[in-house]
Amino acid sequence: MAGCCVVLGSFLFEYDTPRIVLIRSRKVGLMNRMVQLLILAYVIGWVFVWEKGYQETDSVVSSVTTKAKGVAVTNTSKLGFWIWDVADYVIPAQEENSLFIMTNMIITMNQTQSTCAEIPDKTTICNSDSDCIPGSTSTHSNGVETGKCVSFNESVHTCEVAAWCPVEDDAGVPTPAFLKAAENFTLLVKNNIWYPKFNFSKRNILPNITTSYLKSCIYDAQTDPFCPIFRLGKIVEDAGHSFQDMAVEGGIMGIQINWDCNLDRTASLCLPRYSFRRLDTRDLEHNVSPGYNFRFAKYYKDLTGNEQRTLIKAYGIRFDIIVFGKAGKFDVIPTMINIGSGLALLGVATVLCDIIVLYCMKKRYYYRDKKYKYVEDYEQGLAGERDQ
Amino acid sequence: MAGCCVVLGSFLFEYDTPRIVLIRSRKVGLMNRMVQLLILAYVIGWVFVWEKGYQETDSVVSSVTTKAKGVAVTNTSKLGFWIWDVADYVIPAQEENSLFIMTNMIITMNQTQSTCAEIPDKTTICNSDSDCIPGSTSTHSNGVETGKCVSFNESVHTCEVAAWCPVEDDAGVPTPAFLKAAENFTLLVKNNIWYPKFNFSKRNILPNITTSYLKSCIYDAQTDPFCPIFRLGKIVEDAGHSFQDMAVEGGIMGIQINWDCNLDRTASLCLPRYSFRRLDTRDLEHNVSPGYNFRFAKYYKDLTGNEQRTLIKAYGIRFDIIVFGKAGKFDVIPTMINIGSGLALLGVATVLCDIIVLYCMKKRYYYRDKKYKYVEDYEQGLAGERDQ
Amino acid sequence: MAGCCVVLGSFLFEYDTPRIVLIRSRKVGLMNRMVQLLILAYVIGWVFVWEKGYQETDSVVSSVTTKAKGVAVTNTSKLGFWIWDVADYVIPAQEENSLFIMTNMIITMNQTQSTCAEIPDKTTICNSDSDCIPGSTSTHSNGVETGKCVSFNESVHTCEVAAWCPVEDDAGVPTPAFLKAAENFTLLVKNNIWYPKFNFSKRNILPNITTSYLKSCIYDAQTDPFCPIFRLGKIVEDAGHSFQDMAVEGGIMGIQINWDCNLDRTASLCLPRYSFRRLDTRDLEHNVSPGYNFRFAKYYKDLTGNEQRTLIKAYGIRFDIIVFGKAGKFDVIPTMINIGSGLALLGVATVLCDIIVLYCMKKRYYYRDKKYKYVEDYEQGLAGERDQ
Repeated sequence: MAGCCVVLGSFLFEYDTPRIVLIRSRKVGLMNRMVQLLILAYVIGWVFVWEKGYQETDSVVSSVTTKAKGVAVTNTSKLGFWIWDVADYVIPAQEENSLFIMTNMIITMNQTQSTCAEIPDKTTICNSDSDCIPGSTSTHSNGVETGKCVSFNESVHTCEVAAWCPVEDDAGVPTPAFLKAAENFTLLVKNNIWYPKFNFSKRNILPNITTSYLKSCIYDAQTDPFCPIFRLGKIVEDAGHSFQDMAVEGGIMGIQINWDCNLDRTASLCLPRYSFRRLDTRDLEHNVSPGYNFRFAKYYKDLTGNEQRTLIKAYGIRFDIIVFGKAGKFDVIPTMINIGSGLALLGVATVLCDIIVLYCMKKRYYYRDKKYKYVEDYEQGLAGERDQ
Repeated sequence: MAGCCVVLGSFLFEYDTPRIVLIRSRKVGLMNRMVQLLILAYVIGWVFVWEKGYQETDSVVSSVTTKAKGVAVTNTSKLGFWIWDVADYVIPAQEENSLFIMTNMIITMNQTQSTCAEIPDKTTICNSDSDCIPGSTSTHSNGVETGKCVSFNESVHTCEVAAWCPVEDDAGVPTPAFLKAAENFTLLVKNNIWYPKFNFSKRNILPNITTSYLKSCIYDAQTDPFCPIFRLGKIVEDAGHSFQDMAVEGGIMGIQINWDCNLDRTASLCLPRYSFRRLDTRDLEHNVSPGYNFRFAKYYKDLTGNEQRTLIKAYGIRFDIIVFGKAGKFDVIPTMINIGSGLALLGVATVLCDIIVLYCMKKRYYYRDKKYKYVEDYEQGLAGERDQ
Repeated sequence: MAGCCVVLGSFLFEYDTPRIVLIRSRKVGLMNRMVQLLILAYVIGWVFVWEKGYQETDSVVSSVTTKAKGVAVTNTSKLGFWIWDVADYVIPAQEENSLFIMTNMIITMNQTQSTCAEIPDKTTICNSDSDCIPGSTSTHSNGVETGKCVSFNESVHTCEVAAWCPVEDDAGVPTPAFLKAAENFTLLVKNNIWYPKFNFSKRNILPNITTSYLKSCIYDAQTDPFCPIFRLGKIVEDAGHSFQDMAVEGGIMGIQINWDCNLDRTASLCLPRYSFRRLDTRDLEHNVSPGYNFRFAKYYKDLTGNEQRTLIKAYGIRFDIIVFGKAGKFDVIPTMINIGSGLALLGVATVLCDIIVLYCMKKRYYYRDKKYKYVEDYEQGLAGERDQ
C-alpha cells in the first residue's frame, strides 16, 4: 500500500521530455528552417486557405419545382391546325426534380381493340396462314397473332394480330421535330435549399428580384445570371448542342445548380450558379438506341360506349434539375484536428533533415556521434560504450 | 558482400529509442499529467463516446411508398355537388418518393381548339385589329394571335387568339381552398430501409404493429410516435404552418424519416423518428412567385368526334419523403485508426509542457540545460561544447 | 535591435534533433524491426493496395431512362378479350429513375357522381336510417353518407353514400395475377454515368454492342452480363423471389447498377455490374400492409355530357434503378497525406518496443538507465543527479 503510493507519487510528479541535440550550424540550421517553412506553408496554405480546414461543412438539402410556359402551333394533314399548350406537352404534369417536354411525336388515332395486319418486318411478313402461329407474341410485336395472313398494303402480307388497331407505325421520326417551336418555351425553376447543420435556407429567387423582373427576364450567363427562367433553346445551346437536332429524337438535359457557400461571409454572397450539361451521350459513331421517348395514350369512349384511344409515341427532352453544393462555417473541432495533424507533419521535417544531416553531409560522422549513444547488449556494456 | 552482411546485421540487430530527461518536480509533473489527462479525456470522450469512433458506419438505402385516403365534398355553381376521392386529387397517381395532393384549383371546362378573346392584360388589350399581330405569341399568352380585335366583355376588347377556348382566367385563386377538407385526409407512408454493409433491413411498420392498430392509428409525436399514418393537417401544423393558409396557393412539405441506429445494441432499438419541415420558404416580405401549382388536362371527345378537354390549374401540397440516417457497428479497423491518432495527439502534451517548462518557468535555464546538448559546428566542437 | 538579430540568427542557424540511444541487441533489434515491418505492411497493404489510398475518388452522377416492351392478353367476363400494351400498363408513362408495371388490378367501370350503398363493414352496416349520420365520412369510406339506410344486396343493408358510384369492392385480389404474362415483358435500361472530377463519362450500352445484338439479347449474369435488356421474371427470380407470387399484391424491385472503376487502368475495363434486390420486405410472419398498389382513374363523358370514370386499383411492381459507384485515379495529394500518416504510425513501433524493452525484459533496469536521465527539481540538482 505504501509502495503503491510511492509509485503513484513518482508517476504523478514526473515529467519526461526527449533530450535534444542542438546543432549550431548555418547550413544545417537554415535547411531545417526551410523544410519546416515548406511544411508550415503547405499546412496553412493547402489545409487552411485552400481546403478551408477550419470550417465544418454540410451538404445541401433541396426542393425543386418547375413550370414551363409557351404555346406551339402545328398544321398537319392528320390533325389540321392545332394549338399545343403546357397541359398538352408536359408529361406527366408534375415530377419531383424533373420535367419532360414533348418535342416530337408519332400519333396513332382512334385505336380500338380489334384485329389488323401487323407492321411488316422479318418475322411478321407471311405468304399464307401457315406462317402465322395463333396466340404467339414476341417482344417487339404490337399484339397477339390470330393465325391469319392478311394484306398490309397492296404488295405486302403480314400476320394478323389482335391488338389496339390500327397498330402504330413508328418507322420514320418526323424531321424537323413536330413541336420545333419548343425552342422558345421557357422554364421557371424554383429551388429552395437548406443547410441543416447551420439552419441556413435560401431560395434561388433572390431577395432583390421583383415580380415585374421575374415576368420579363430570361437567364443569360452574362447579363442575367440570377434569373431563374430559362429559354429551352438556350439551355441546350449552352451545353454545346443543337436544340433542333435534339428535338427530333429526344434526350436528357441536366440543369445543374451549384450552391457552394462560405457562411463565414454574409448570406447575400451565397448565390446559385447555373450550368447545363447533356446527360445522354450523343455518340455519333456508336449511335445505338439514341434519344429519349416513351408511349402514352389518351382514352375515349365512342358513341356505343366502346373504349378507344389515341396512342402517342412522345419524343422529347427531359430536364433533370441537379442541385448540389457545400456550405462551410468556422468551427472549433475541425480547426483543432487540423492544427493537430499540422503539428504532426512538422515532425516529418526533423526526419527529412536527419536523413540529410546524418547520411549526406560531409561531417555526418561527427553529427551521428552527437545524436546517438551506442549501447552494447553485454554485461560489460557500461564500460564498453562510447560516452556520447 | 561481407560488408553488406555486416551493415544488414547491424541494421537488423539495432534498436533506437529517444533519450529522455525525466524531471522529478511536483509542479511540472502534475501539469504534464493534467495535460495528458485532458487530451486522453478528449480522445476517449469525443472520439469514442460521442463520435463512436470504434464503429464502422453505413448510409441508409431506402424505398418509399405512399397512399393517401380521404373524401372531400364541394358544392359550386360550376360543378354542382361533387365528390373528390384519391383518384381525383392525387396527381400523378404514383411517384417515387413524393405525393402531390391537390387542395385548390382553377377549372376551365369544355375547351376546344378554336378562337376566342385573350385574357386582358397590358399587351392584349386592343382598340382595333391593327393592335394585334397575326401569328404572334408571347411567353404568357394562351394561344396564337389571329390579328383580330374582339370584345372580351362589354367594356374591354382584346386580341383574338387561336387556342384551347375558352382560355383560362387564373386571376383569382379561390379562397378558402376548394378542397379545404384535405386537412383531414390521411397519408400512409411505407418505408423499407437497408444498411448494405451490415445486411440489416427494417420497415417502418414495426413488428409489434397489428393490422387493427394500423387501421385506426394516427401519428402523434407523444402518443403514437411509430404509427406510419399521418393526418395532413397535423403534418403542416407540426412544421409550424397553417394548413388552410398553405392549401390556397400550395407548397411543399418534407416528411423526414431519421433511421440513426447503433447496431451494437439490439435491432429492436433501431427505430424511425419522424419530423416535418416546410421545404418552400414562405417569405411574407418577399412574396414573389409563392406556392406550388401546375396545369393538367382531361381529354374527351364530343358527339361529333372532336377533341375537347377540361383544363385544371392544380394548387396543392407536394409531400416529399426524405429518408436519412447512419448505422454504426463495432469494427477493428476504425478502432485501430482512432487509437493510433489518439496516441499521436498525446505527443502534443509533451510539446505544450515543453513550451511552459522551457520558456515560462523560473528555472527554465536549468531545465533547458538538461534537455539540450549544444553542439557547435566547428572542428574544435568537441572541446567547445558544454557537456549536456 | 541588435539583441533581436542575435536571437533571430541563433533561431535560424540552429538545428535540433532528438538524441537517440542505439541499443545493439539481437533480441530487441529483431523485435523492433518486426514491429516496424508489420506496421509498414499494414500501411502499404491496407492503405495503398486494398484501399487505394494513392487515388483521388469521385462519386457517380447518373441519368437513367427505361423502356418496357411486351403485350399481354386477358379474357374476363367484365372486359372480354382484351389486349394490354405498354401505354396501358406503365403508369405514369415516364418517371425519372423508376418504372411501374401493373400486374394485377381491381377495375370498377362506369362510375358516376351519384348515391349508392357503401361496401359493408363494421361501421357501415345499418338497420335503419337512424344508424347513418348525414354528412359524415371516415378515412376508409368511399363517399359522404346521405343518412339513408339502403340494401347492399339481398341480405345486407348499408348506409347510402354520395360518391363515385358504384363504389369499388376491393375485398379480393385476383389470384393468379390478372397480367401474369408480365413475367415475359422486357425492360431496356439506358444509363449514362459521369465522373465530374475526371470528366469521364460512359453509357451502359457498351461500344461493342450492335443494334442487332440489342434487338435480340436478354440479360443473363453468365452469358450476357452486359446486355441492358432484362426479362421481368428473371429480375425477380435473381433476387430470390417468385414473380407470380409478387405479381398478385405488387412490390418494389431494385435494379442496382454498380460502376466501380479504377481509372488508372484503361477505360474499357470500367464496366457496369447489375444486381437485383427486392426493396419491400416480404415478411411472412408479419404480413401487415404488404405489396404495392395505388388507384387511378380514366375519365370519360357520356352522351349527355356527364362525367364518368373507370377506377382502377393497380397492383404492380415498381422497378427502382439505383446507380452507384466510385472511381479512383492517381493523385499527388492523397498519396502524400497517406505517406505522412503512414510515417506517423511508424512512431507507434517505438512506443510498443519501449514498453516491451523497459517494462518486460530482464535487463529493463539497464536499458532504462541508458534511456533516461533523472533530474531532481532541487537546487542541488546538478550534484544529486546520476549522470545519464
